Amino acid sequence: MARRRSTLDEATLIGRYFAGPQALRADVVLGIGDDAAVTRMRRGCDLVTATDALFEGVHYPRGTPPRAIGHRCLAVNLSDLAAMGAKPLWASLALSLPRATGAWLREFSAGFFALAEAWNVALIGGDTVRGPPGATVTVQGEVRRGRHVTRDAARAGDGIWVTGHPGDAVAGRLLLARRGGSPLLRRRFLYPAPRLREGVALAGIASAMMDVSDGLHDDLGKLMRASGCGAELDASRLPLSRQLLAATGPAAARDMALCGGDDYELLFTVPARREAQLARLTRDWAVPATRIGTVRRAAGLRWSLDGKPFRFRDRTFRHFR
Amino acid sequence: MARRRSTLDEATLIGRYFAGPQALRADVVLGIGDDAAVTRMRRGCDLVTATDALFEGVHYPRGTPPRAIGHRCLAVNLSDLAAMGAKPLWASLALSLPRATGAWLREFSAGFFALAEAWNVALIGGDTVRGPPGATVTVQGEVRRGRHVTRDAARAGDGIWVTGHPGDAVAGRLLLARRGGSPLLRRRFLYPAPRLREGVALAGIASAMMDVSDGLHDDLGKLMRASGCGAELDASRLPLSRQLLAATGPAAARDMALCGGDDYELLFTVPARREAQLARLTRDWAVPATRIGTVRRAAGLRWSLDGKPFRFRDRTFRHFR
Repeated sequence: MARRRSTLDEATLIGRYFAGPQALRADVVLGIGDDAAVTRMRRGCDLVTATDALFEGVHYPRGTPPRAIGHRCLAVNLSDLAAMGAKPLWASLALSLPRATGAWLREFSAGFFALAEAWNVALIGGDTVRGPPGATVTVQGEVRRGRHVTRDAARAGDGIWVTGHPGDAVAGRLLLARRGGSPLLRRRFLYPAPRLREGVALAGIASAMMDVSDGLHDDLGKLMRASGCGAELDASRLPLSRQLLAATGPAAARDMALCGGDDYELLFTVPARREAQLARLTRDWAVPATRIGTVRRAAGLRWSLDGKPFRFRDRTFRHFR
Repeated sequence: MARRRSTLDEATLIGRYFAGPQALRADVVLGIGDDAAVTRMRRGCDLVTATDALFEGVHYPRGTPPRAIGHRCLAVNLSDLAAMGAKPLWASLALSLPRATGAWLREFSAGFFALAEAWNVALIGGDTVRGPPGATVTVQGEVRRGRHVTRDAARAGDGIWVTGHPGDAVAGRLLLARRGGSPLLRRRFLYPAPRLREGVALAGIASAMMDVSDGLHDDLGKLMRASGCGAELDASRLPLSRQLLAATGPAAARDMALCGGDDYELLFTVPARREAQLARLTRDWAVPATRIGTVRRAAGLRWSLDGKPFRFRDRTFRHFR
């Protein structure tokens, strides 16, 4: 039975799915519906801006639930703000669709707004166009002047830490195709949780920070190169989740934790003198923080496992190679 | 002869084509290369944000020169800021490409940065991904508090004005396929000029303003509906360019001016008491401003031509219908 899909014009589409469930923010002077949005910064704060694009078949497999896509396109951007130690304020959404169907948009916007409301982020504008299926989000946040955390200030001797359980997301992504396995792992891929509370708390404690999106090993390399350092790392300390170990065994689990990507955990370095402060801080966190190594002066990443050098094939996904 | 296209990894690509020719802005605390950018607002100003997505085959034809795409993706966003009466500061670029080739990127970035430098706009970040050919830009600008111009405040009796020569761009777009005709018209489509100087100057004079992107008739309808008004319009006053008239004759030229789109001119309304002020202002402009009608209380757009009602088929392009 062929059913005609209903299509919608842009104004109706925005009014029905995107103008409604807004976070109430007094700092939004003018929101959706004009040529641009007008917002107001707090005094003493700098503006922090991140943009990430997601396309079907590249960043998420075809068949990913639209609710998860709506969540994800905001989550990956919030994760960037978290990595700066910033607090999110506003988001803009450029949504591209081959056609506009009510069912798809309802689910997509439900996923987007559930996360936006959880962090009191207002959707202030964007663009809805006919095009290949994808979404580009820009988030704006604030950070107290001088308190943002860059990725280029790690120093030899600093401990290297990561939040959560890297590897879970890529395992979840692989499980999606098979329609089986741990619901928790699938959730880790479909609904990444931006570590905003943790990121803001780490400002003033972490010497350097970034989020893990391309894979822990690759992102560690970026942080160390940006800081002009290297690292010694212990693969036996990788915080592999029980679910990941049960799904794949320890060798594949390590591989996924190191090269999988899509984790959206925080990778950060902490000077030895601030470790006690960090311990007090993380005690109340819902997510673990695990020390996996130490920053060294010499460039390069040196992994060990049970006291011996550990080698593995770098299977990090890269966009252009 | 098949030649292998060279491809580039993302870091090299950003370093080579996007990190270099930056506007020097002291208000960029942290630019390209970290998880997010950090910028600083001036006191007494509000932040103005616009996002527009462009995709090949939808917003520009396949075969459009990459230099023009680089110009265009920034220009259409700057046009949104102009329509608010805002001054641009910073831009973020999410670029999506099936593959990264040096020649394409060199041209694209040359087009982008030529316009960015002309307006002292700094590229502060973005994302470069493998995906369908397209670009989504977010621009951020500033406006003195309370000075932004919305589209919902036109009042009965206000004059209705438009800058430049609507219709030129769509004619240029049609000529592209034919590889002939007026170079000026083709340029109007390929390299739209955002009316930033005019937009900022109109803040405090215009009662309502927006940019013309979907077509003058359609955008007029939006402005009047947002303002709860209607309009009487005189099609004989349409500022048709000499080149457009020569290329198509008066009937087709009017049609293109009314329904063509891609103009990126400013459409604005001015109360009668401020017309003298407007006249003094526009005297020095490089681009004409033309009064084409009057705002009326009754909803709807009533076009006339040489004193008689003027009807035409609304052929405005809409993304979803």
